[in-house]
Amino acid sequence: IVKREVVQLITPGTVMEGGALTEKQNNYFVSLTEADGQIVVVAVDMTTGEVRVTKVNETDALNEISSYRAREIVLASELSEAFLQQIKERVSATFSIEENETALEEAETVASSLQDDACKRGIYRAIHYVKRTTKRALDHLQEATYYEPRQFLLMDVHSKRNLELVETVREKKKAGSLLSVLDKTETSMGARLLKQWIERPAISVQEIKDRQELVSAFIDGFFERVEVRELLRGVYDLERLSGRISFGNVNGRDLLQLKNSLLQVPKIVENVRALNTSFGEKLVQSMEDMSPVVALLEESIKEDCPISITEGDLIKDGYNSTLDDYRHVMQNGKSWIAELEQKERQETGIKTLKVGFNKVFGYYIEVTKANVRLLPEGRYERKQTLTNAERYVTPELKEREVLILEAEEKSEKLEHTLFLEIREQVKSYIQQLQLVAKRISTIDCLQSFAEVAEQHNYVEPTFTEDRSLQLKESRHPVVEQVIDAGDYVANDIELRDDRQMLLITGPNMAGKSTYMRQVALTSIMAQIGSFVPATEARLPIFDQIFTRIGAADDLASGQSTFMVEMLETKQAVLHATDRSLLLLDEIGRGTSTYDGMALAQAIMEYIHDEIGAKTLFSTHYHELTALSETLPKLWNVHVSAKEENDSIVFLHKVVEGAADRSYGIYVAELAELPYGLITRAKSILQTLESERDREPQAEPE
Amino acid sequence: IVKREVVQLITPGTVMEGGALTEKQNNYFVSLTEADGQIVVVAVDMTTGEVRVTKVNETDALNEISSYRAREIVLASELSEAFLQQIKERVSATFSIEENETALEEAETVASSLQDDACKRGIYRAIHYVKRTTKRALDHLQEATYYEPRQFLLMDVHSKRNLELVETVREKKKAGSLLSVLDKTETSMGARLLKQWIERPAISVQEIKDRQELVSAFIDGFFERVEVRELLRGVYDLERLSGRISFGNVNGRDLLQLKNSLLQVPKIVENVRALNTSFGEKLVQSMEDMSPVVALLEESIKEDCPISITEGDLIKDGYNSTLDDYRHVMQNGKSWIAELEQKERQETGIKTLKVGFNKVFGYYIEVTKANVRLLPEGRYERKQTLTNAERYVTPELKEREVLILEAEEKSEKLEHTLFLEIREQVKSYIQQLQLVAKRISTIDCLQSFAEVAEQHNYVEPTFTEDRSLQLKESRHPVVEQVIDAGDYVANDIELRDDRQMLLITGPNMAGKSTYMRQVALTSIMAQIGSFVPATEARLPIFDQIFTRIGAADDLASGQSTFMVEMLETKQAVLHATDRSLLLLDEIGRGTSTYDGMALAQAIMEYIHDEIGAKTLFSTHYHELTALSETLPKLWNVHVSAKEENDSIVFLHKVVEGAADRSYGIYVAELAELPYGLITRAKSILQTLESERDREPQAEPE
Repeated sequence: IVKREVVQLITPGTVMEGGALTEKQNNYFVSLTEADGQIVVVAVDMTTGEVRVTKVNETDALNEISSYRAREIVLASELSEAFLQQIKERVSATFSIEENETALEEAETVASSLQDDACKRGIYRAIHYVKRTTKRALDHLQEATYYEPRQFLLMDVHSKRNLELVETVREKKKAGSLLSVLDKTETSMGARLLKQWIERPAISVQEIKDRQELVSAFIDGFFERVEVRELLRGVYDLERLSGRISFGNVNGRDLLQLKNSLLQVPKIVENVRALNTSFGEKLVQSMEDMSPVVALLEESIKEDCPISITEGDLIKDGYNSTLDDYRHVMQNGKSWIAELEQKERQETGIKTLKVGFNKVFGYYIEVTKANVRLLPEGRYERKQTLTNAERYVTPELKEREVLILEAEEKSEKLEHTLFLEIREQVKSYIQQLQLVAKRISTIDCLQSFAEVAEQHNYVEPTFTEDRSLQLKESRHPVVEQVIDAGDYVANDIELRDDRQMLLITGPNMAGKSTYMRQVALTSIMAQIGSFVPATEARLPIFDQIFTRIGAADDLASGQSTFMVEMLETKQAVLHATDRSLLLLDEIGRGTSTYDGMALAQAIMEYIHDEIGAKTLFSTHYHELTALSETLPKLWNVHVSAKEENDSIVFLHKVVEGAADRSYGIYVAELAELPYGLITRAKSILQTLESERDREPQAEPE
Repeated sequence: IVKREVVQLITPGTVMEGGALTEKQNNYFVSLTEADGQIVVVAVDMTTGEVRVTKVNETDALNEISSYRAREIVLASELSEAFLQQIKERVSATFSIEENETALEEAETVASSLQDDACKRGIYRAIHYVKRTTKRALDHLQEATYYEPRQFLLMDVHSKRNLELVETVREKKKAGSLLSVLDKTETSMGARLLKQWIERPAISVQEIKDRQELVSAFIDGFFERVEVRELLRGVYDLERLSGRISFGNVNGRDLLQLKNSLLQVPKIVENVRALNTSFGEKLVQSMEDMSPVVALLEESIKEDCPISITEGDLIKDGYNSTLDDYRHVMQNGKSWIAELEQKERQETGIKTLKVGFNKVFGYYIEVTKANVRLLPEGRYERKQTLTNAERYVTPELKEREVLILEAEEKSEKLEHTLFLEIREQVKSYIQQLQLVAKRISTIDCLQSFAEVAEQHNYVEPTFTEDRSLQLKESRHPVVEQVIDAGDYVANDIELRDDRQMLLITGPNMAGKSTYMRQVALTSIMAQIGSFVPATEARLPIFDQIFTRIGAADDLASGQSTFMVEMLETKQAVLHATDRSLLLLDEIGRGTSTYDGMALAQAIMEYIHDEIGAKTLFSTHYHELTALSETLPKLWNVHVSAKEENDSIVFLHKVVEGAADRSYGIYVAELAELPYGLITRAKSILQTLESERDREPQAEPE
């Protein structure tokens, strides 16, 4: 029995190619390290070499793990059981143990920018794990980026899901998500970066304005944008290519792709420069000159090389003189054989005589049975008898054969060696390559924003210092695309510190939740640098967005809807600040009338008095509209409807003030419930309403 | 160019085998024929030969089409466009046009029992279509059964879906449905019949009691049941087999399956007889004696016959003397050749000499090159030269060859002819075969009920004349299986003409909708002849069941939830009678408080005063509980909860009276909302409640 050593373990987090990977998504694994009650979360994408690290409390760690959609989680066995349990409830990933967190040489570059010891241990753990499983070089791992979740606009997992940022709630498909609207990227790298941005919008005004500057220029520079998009289409996935170069997984065709991609870069730089923006200039300036790599590949790799790297035909003539010599011998030998065929035909007079080759016998001379009698005795040595022919060899033919076959073998070996050398040379450029990849991705995202903005008439948002928000003719970016042009009703929205909460009433079919969602989506778009669907947009920089919007998926999971409602509401009221945005849809709906009304009122009062977050609150409790008398920063708005020929038309228009009536009974009439039943309902309603009008609202504190 | 004639068109509705079919489901196509404002619906399952026909109004026709899950709909082009549109909204099927509805001979047997001309036209249309597409014999089509939807317990499509009778709402899977609980059938035919029963429960007490009698006997007769289950496992799909026999689609192995299945029948009959029930006796008496078929197949078809029916080896020795003769010649010839090999080896002294056969040269004698020199000159005629051997023939060898090959060819042809004859003979038994299949399916369903009843401790329900319903310790058949034994809380339910409606209040997590559903599911189980999950069960025969239960799927479809609520409610109030069961969950929830409350009250009053249907009505409007004072047949019940150490335990127990309080604020406390917020909510609630108590309820009419 031959003892086999494990050469390489492929795990969900370290897979480098094949069906398990999705082009337009990162493939992160996460390592977790305990640090005095906090958790160091390290996220590594082996395919791109990206390494991110943060140190947070357990709750935030859970959010981070979810938002990376980690497929594998690497941890030490001493991690608390309770915390592990919470992770398992949230994500379905492979869990792998890696106890070793000692310093190691390979990790020094990756960890070089980190000060914190715990963070360094986290990096070491991740890299020990990768080293142990993949057993390959890790040169493509980039310097780790330390970040804090608060450097980005925070959204919890529920909110991201409810807002359908990167996939729809129900079908888990990209189509129908914000991502699908914004994604006009041309490269997989760009698509991945866009997804990262949407998952973590910026909170730095400068960062956002930089992006806006280039988006704006791309909108104006139509020809440059068309040109850049065309050029990007010729750029392959440089991030993953560099990962595979480092892993030694590339073949000749990959290197050709690399070369062709790099050939696009100077032309992209030129077009971006032509836009004349300071951010664009910064982006392209940092693009290192990759011409040595291009030149190397240009002179070495054949344009039509095969996938295999061990069977020759990879390296261009003129690149290596020994190889050229071998090729000369092979070429010569083959011409000699061609001449031999001519010569023997003439000398024997057999026109059908031919020289052939097969793997078992090598070169031979073949004569048909009918012609065998024409051969002079002893001219050739018989080698093989077929049904209709005989095959022969001669000593000089065999001599040549040896020369040719030797040269072939040597040249294949030499080509393989040369290829590995070229690959090593390319490897030394990995860091520059990764930088280029990052810049190209950014350019790709920003041209995509420009493309989308132009196509859908978006406007460039400006940012307010006073936390106020004004949107004119704002639309929902996804919904407006599925509704016939002209039918979509745009809405104005205004929030200020003295108009902090909107209480939204109105009939059920009129689109209250679309209205609420579009405010959140517009804010997110603005904070990733995109333009937004409105005719005018002035927005604050939000620090957090919380949503509690009727979630279809809760019904299925069997957890009580009302408990979910309360848990999500708790997240909102505990963590929100006066710079946050809250969307609360029909809070209190899941319990009995008075209970629900009391909770809704108490929650509104709490947000109004204690938090001061910008809040959109929709409700069926029309009674709550009276609260605007006691809560000065609460304003009523309602979705309007009008009666027309005894039916109602929902206008989808949000206007100031409380809804003057509800349309439930009208809907019942539309559905053609019995006449007597409808009349009775109307009379009951009248009684209820006259009672209410006689009665004061629950007193505020 | 050869002109090809269409031999057979395979359409979704007429497919007879292969991946498009599901074993345990019927594959109906439906034909529609207009008849003075009514619609004749004909449903045909080509695989089993079943034909069903009814004449109904358009609304009922839509329900019928949905409940057949028709994959193809055959209609005349004059059918109204509006009606066609409605069908298309409901089902996704292939639509095929068949204008011809003239009488035709092949349809006479099928239509023989029908009086109504329109129904006959419907049958003709269906059969013209089948004839035109399949171009095959239709002997297996059974005599059409005329029925009226009102012969069964009526449920609309929404109710069937909401109750998850045959598949779950969300995943569209059988697991988790009522069908999955009840299906312990052993044959595909049984599984199909069970599904039909669940889709259309009976309303005839006699029919139900017949079934119960046999279920009961199967429960007591443990050994008979085990034996019957074992025997059923050996019965193939006789229904579909008979369809394929008629279509000429069967091979030798199918006929063996038929034989083996029929061999089980007498043993099944014997065991059912041993149970000594009058219904069982009736079932097995009508089972025709199939022994002639068994005997025919026993003497004719080889046990190990191949799939092909044209390459021989199908028919047993002794069945046909000419075939036996051919086989003798073949056998003889082959021995002669074996002897020849021996003889030639001796005479030439070449031990490696052998006789072989190939398709091109026929029989030959092969001698290796080394031994060729040992052959006397001219002994054989050379035929073929190989690298290492020469092949020869002799005139007498060739003579024999002709004899053998001729006999082989003739015997293959004869076997094919004999096989077709046998198939025709079997075909003449199709009607008896179909009858056996039907009886076997029924026995299979009833043993399945016995198996399930024993496994889950079901009780035999009795039926009341006075429309009253009493269930003791009733359970939800599906939910009880996913909850740990012992944790499930059973409930009593009582409805009478003077206790016609239950208004159910109580906290959200406590399982109000499970309670409501279990009443409907228990009634359906009772009306298909199954035992039910309770310790005592007395039930009326319901004519219709309507449900309006929070349906997750509406959310997705984008239609306004409240409009759906009202449309489904309309169906219930328009069609229900005093023999119907209504389940209305949180009606009025989808609109504003007063609107919803007014509608809920008006609907309850209408059902109470005008319809008198047995009704379970759950609500969050605790205010509605006061209605019991003015509606004498309305009783309040509530799902109980108790407070324990400052938290609440939901007991899932339904008890008499209105809930004394709601637990919404407690849930908010459990979710750990801020203390101040909770206190404030409690105080608001107090104010609201004291106001209510001061104020009389909306006056009844």
